[in-house]
Amino acid sequence: MQNIKEYMKAVGQAARAASRHMALADTAAKNLALNATAEFIRKRKALLIAENAKDVEAAKANGLDAASIDRLTLNDKTIHSMADGLEQIAQLPDPIGEISELKYRPTGIQVGKMRVPLGVIGIIYESRPNVTADAAGLCIKSGNACILRGGSEAIYSNRAIAECVQQGLKAADLPAAAVQVVNITDRAAVGELITMKEYVDVIVPRGGKSLIARISEEAKVPVIKHLDGVCHVYIDDEADLDKAIRIADNAKTQRYGVCNAMETLLVAQSVAADVLPRLCAIYLNKGVELRGDESERALVPQMKIATEEDWYTEYLAPILAVRIVAGLDEAIEHIATYGSQHTDSIVTENYTKAMRFLREVDSSSVMVNASTRFADGFEYGLGAEIGISTDKIHARGPVGLEGLTSQKYIVLGSGQVRN
Amino acid sequence: MQNIKEYMKAVGQAARAASRHMALADTAAKNLALNATAEFIRKRKALLIAENAKDVEAAKANGLDAASIDRLTLNDKTIHSMADGLEQIAQLPDPIGEISELKYRPTGIQVGKMRVPLGVIGIIYESRPNVTADAAGLCIKSGNACILRGGSEAIYSNRAIAECVQQGLKAADLPAAAVQVVNITDRAAVGELITMKEYVDVIVPRGGKSLIARISEEAKVPVIKHLDGVCHVYIDDEADLDKAIRIADNAKTQRYGVCNAMETLLVAQSVAADVLPRLCAIYLNKGVELRGDESERALVPQMKIATEEDWYTEYLAPILAVRIVAGLDEAIEHIATYGSQHTDSIVTENYTKAMRFLREVDSSSVMVNASTRFADGFEYGLGAEIGISTDKIHARGPVGLEGLTSQKYIVLGSGQVRN
Repeated sequence: MQNIKEYMKAVGQAARAASRHMALADTAAKNLALNATAEFIRKRKALLIAENAKDVEAAKANGLDAASIDRLTLNDKTIHSMADGLEQIAQLPDPIGEISELKYRPTGIQVGKMRVPLGVIGIIYESRPNVTADAAGLCIKSGNACILRGGSEAIYSNRAIAECVQQGLKAADLPAAAVQVVNITDRAAVGELITMKEYVDVIVPRGGKSLIARISEEAKVPVIKHLDGVCHVYIDDEADLDKAIRIADNAKTQRYGVCNAMETLLVAQSVAADVLPRLCAIYLNKGVELRGDESERALVPQMKIATEEDWYTEYLAPILAVRIVAGLDEAIEHIATYGSQHTDSIVTENYTKAMRFLREVDSSSVMVNASTRFADGFEYGLGAEIGISTDKIHARGPVGLEGLTSQKYIVLGSGQVRN
Repeated sequence: MQNIKEYMKAVGQAARAASRHMALADTAAKNLALNATAEFIRKRKALLIAENAKDVEAAKANGLDAASIDRLTLNDKTIHSMADGLEQIAQLPDPIGEISELKYRPTGIQVGKMRVPLGVIGIIYESRPNVTADAAGLCIKSGNACILRGGSEAIYSNRAIAECVQQGLKAADLPAAAVQVVNITDRAAVGELITMKEYVDVIVPRGGKSLIARISEEAKVPVIKHLDGVCHVYIDDEADLDKAIRIADNAKTQRYGVCNAMETLLVAQSVAADVLPRLCAIYLNKGVELRGDESERALVPQMKIATEEDWYTEYLAPILAVRIVAGLDEAIEHIATYGSQHTDSIVTENYTKAMRFLREVDSSSVMVNASTRFADGFEYGLGAEIGISTDKIHARGPVGLEGLTSQKYIVLGSGQVRN
């Protein structure tokens, strides 16, 4: 335990020192590091697959479930896609040093803001080796140093990928300690990482709810977190029903296991008889289990009975809770009570109701006439995404490069003093 | 103790409920509440002074120091200035609902950001009753609810001011619970306030270092904090020496007890003999105690000997540490080692060195040819200031109305679904 503390302290100190270099690195050097890393990853494909095989073998021996093993496994395609991802990050504009809002004040000074890195980012994630390359890439481009703590099942893969990143940094004459993979699989290392305030500026956990809840409970370092995605689509009585059916279908069935999939469908009373049978036929045809109360089941008899718990549930599966509401007020109230402030969408042609929904629903993404599945850094044009924040402090919604930066004030004077 | 827990929970629940109303309040209602509060404060001047007298009397009986009693005391002037402050906040643009960066994406959706309140702000401050009106005003205008916990020595004054605010809220048909003063002087109430994550979104402590350090150590709720202000002015070898003397004089002596006053002066070796004797004569004439090492004392014999501790110290007093450095690199290194990331200024006519200082000094305000005393919400044009953050997460530097808000994503579609 004492050794872990010392090891993590050394990692933290090295990261802090590297972060000062990274903050001053110019755009060309950071892009060179990203592109060189991509090249190393492509070149060392055979080695990466061999190292990954050790992880996969151990995971199978330990009886890890098939889905986890699938996420753990690297192949030709996933390796190229890691390299592609790094090259895409290199293409993005450099957020660091960007000066905005530089304005003269009556005293004659010019005041503005300059975008700066946060410093050292700790990233804690499950056994998905591609996150190692992805997170390293975002941190390099945003001028931060990072400490990566991936799932212990991926330790061989992560070390091999980190080795490529470090070669990339070296090629650009940037400090190798800018990206460090925690080499200790003991959980106590996480406990250190999330409490080393002197060395770590922010923690980004990526993974299941229980992991994130535990980390934010114990952390002393600020956490950019993403808890549940209990997303809603509300079909208003003034909805274009063709749009409504297209959006509600897509929001639920385009992909099931994702945080921006709809989990509860709300339908205005006066259009329920018109829209629910048509829409539910589509769901049932795709194998989606439907859950509702008596009034919904009267329209769609195949529906199972919903319990109070259902309205709170992020299924991440082909299951959908359905509720008929009196109208907009009840829909907003339902979302406020049961939602998770992730993503909610209204389908309506009514201007005033659209504006009210946008203003009154307190979620990180609020939409009109669009599928909740658009809540995503790439779809929003951020170019990359380190996660989706359901917090309000610092970053909200999809977090791209900007979410890993801060802004300092700059003042340009010509000898001014204060009276 | 159980009673305090229950009391604070009730305060938190009421604040959370009020925050939903405040988030949707329109600009006119919020301005009406602010102006009505100002009116009540002016009308009840006699009552406020009477209530304040109880606090002042108790404070004197308890042997509070003169400076603290001075900050505690309300008079005609301070009462009018509280009212003026509220009316000024009413004049500021409403940040809430502001939509920015609304852009079309290739999929046809429009993605942008809408500014929203944080929710419930907990403000913890010392025995300065004017902060009660000031903080309440900023929270009302930014659509937040707040829980105010002022120093126990000001409890009668704070209650009387809060009563005016609540009358103001009532006049605008806004919930009185939008501004609550904690009625319990027991310190355990603070412990509850900073850990009630369900009811409080952010804590803003205003006060001494030790208070803030303790709060951020124990808080479970995010804290916008302001620790030391160890501010530097660096006089470069290519400085205009007249500007340098004017700025270094102003930064130290315009006011001593403030966080943006200079505490350490750095001077480039090659101009030290020219500038230090002239500048130090001004300081000595104003009664500023100077501290330096041998090389500085060789130029200014009246200087006392500085210890290592001096370079870290925020004097908040007529004391100044002075160090001669080789040049820009050593100045930046000194600031990185001993500074507190608050405000630092370079005096130089050299473009490249000015740009390097702006980019390389990692402080919340970085200046060229201007006095550090400008680091202030009003001077920066924020119109108001709840504090100065030395954090990097969320808000950095002077925090105005915007620092009490967040941004959510909004998506405007016309039936789009994701492929």
